[in-house]
Amino acid sequence: MDWIAVDWGTSHLRVWGMTRDGQVKFRKDSDAGMGTLDRDGFEPALLDLLGDALGDDTMPVIICGMAGSRQGWSEATYHSAPCAPPGARFATYVPTQSSNISVHILPGVKQDSPADVMRGEETQIAGFLALNPKFDGVICLPGTHTKWVHISANEIVSFRTFMTGEMFALLSEQSVLRHSVDADGWSADAFEDAVATGMSHPAELAGRLFSLRAEGLLHDLDAQTARTRLSGLLIGVELAAARPYWLGQHVALIGDDELCQAYAKALGAQGLPVERTDADRMTLEGLKAAYTHIMERLT
Amino acid sequence: MDWIAVDWGTSHLRVWGMTRDGQVKFRKDSDAGMGTLDRDGFEPALLDLLGDALGDDTMPVIICGMAGSRQGWSEATYHSAPCAPPGARFATYVPTQSSNISVHILPGVKQDSPADVMRGEETQIAGFLALNPKFDGVICLPGTHTKWVHISANEIVSFRTFMTGEMFALLSEQSVLRHSVDADGWSADAFEDAVATGMSHPAELAGRLFSLRAEGLLHDLDAQTARTRLSGLLIGVELAAARPYWLGQHVALIGDDELCQAYAKALGAQGLPVERTDADRMTLEGLKAAYTHIMERLT
Repeated sequence: MDWIAVDWGTSHLRVWGMTRDGQVKFRKDSDAGMGTLDRDGFEPALLDLLGDALGDDTMPVIICGMAGSRQGWSEATYHSAPCAPPGARFATYVPTQSSNISVHILPGVKQDSPADVMRGEETQIAGFLALNPKFDGVICLPGTHTKWVHISANEIVSFRTFMTGEMFALLSEQSVLRHSVDADGWSADAFEDAVATGMSHPAELAGRLFSLRAEGLLHDLDAQTARTRLSGLLIGVELAAARPYWLGQHVALIGDDELCQAYAKALGAQGLPVERTDADRMTLEGLKAAYTHIMERLT
Repeated sequence: MDWIAVDWGTSHLRVWGMTRDGQVKFRKDSDAGMGTLDRDGFEPALLDLLGDALGDDTMPVIICGMAGSRQGWSEATYHSAPCAPPGARFATYVPTQSSNISVHILPGVKQDSPADVMRGEETQIAGFLALNPKFDGVICLPGTHTKWVHISANEIVSFRTFMTGEMFALLSEQSVLRHSVDADGWSADAFEDAVATGMSHPAELAGRLFSLRAEGLLHDLDAQTARTRLSGLLIGVELAAARPYWLGQHVALIGDDELCQAYAKALGAQGLPVERTDADRMTLEGLKAAYTHIMERLT
């Protein structure tokens, strides 16, 4: 093992033990996300997860994600779009107690107007662009805060974040709809209909959501269909707003498998073929590109 | 005291000790809402709150709200709109252990398509119509689940529920926006702008919500303005969908003071004067009308 790749989000910590030439020696996960840690907690959490994987030599550690936010381990100031995904050149070096690690945190990207920010996604984008250097089009990263990113000439030209995923989680788990909506399950037809409804009647969202509850009470709407329709309505409304991003574009999806499948289906119904990628792989490719650059600078 | 009026919602229990001619002798509140009780818990909760207000005679108790739901004390089956607010004639009598109370629960109202339900609001509407017997127009009841109700010839013709209030609570208290949004405070200009934005760009809701977070991070958006804009965006989107209800109509608002003030302002900006009423008074007037009818039947 020559270095350590780290994806440190709000709710998760993922590390990969890497060789110089990009082979993965191990992967470890924990739920020691940024949201659970004080500033002093990051180094112990990382060392704890790495355990005896560290030897006596100082190991380079490249981190992307929320660990670089103001409430994180050490702030890695945003770069302003339009810009290339900010790589190793702009990483923040973080002094540590332990001499076994040499920590570098990659910056996120901001946009002044409409105000927007990303942390972590820029590294997945860097990974995607490392594998697809000629890509020109739009990358959509579905998730808690779904991003639509316009890419041209290897730069993030503009982007827009939608709280769709977080709204789905809150509504399905914590609102009155929790009584009507299953924790999982899927109904393909219901999804396409709900996406179409969300796209064509976005203002009616809050009303159609309550109807899911009422249809459960009055017409025995099953909880799996209700879950699918909740998801479809929210994604449909998002697609209506994101139309300037995807219409007539080459779209690539980076994210969770099941969610990307839903987005691919919704966009497919609009006659838009999309490219799906492996999110973890994009993160790792982005971190690998950053490691290569850091090594070039240090040697 | 001759009878007891009860408003029993998901999260609250309110009782009024009443005289035959409608004077309030006392009012007591507790947080023993339906959501906190098993079926066997309703009678003890009510007796507990009434305490020594009960004498030896059997006291009529008229209840509206979620206590009549399937998960409540005893189901009071919905009436189907179009219908008048279902009064005492349709109340469900609930046998009790105690001989000191004689309990009647008023039904809610349902609508088959679009599927919708109300419980409690129909009693406020009955109260409003008792005070305004010639009213023809629209009653809006802002709250956790805001209702828009078309009234004609003393009947509920149709209605629509929006989860706007619950979405506001979840987003401001439990989403990433909780870091950017104050618990209270108001900015009048920001509200009107946000309502206009929500009305004209309803699809962009999930994107504009995330911008509140990003503007806090990048442009020091203050948390009071952020709270106001969150509220304005959600209400604006609702008003866009509810336009068929309010456009060119006589609108009366029943609900929490602060919230009704917001709705009045938003509708006022559309050139629509609205009538504001006292929500508790409407509930009580509705329960009084039901008591009168029950007494007429029993004597």
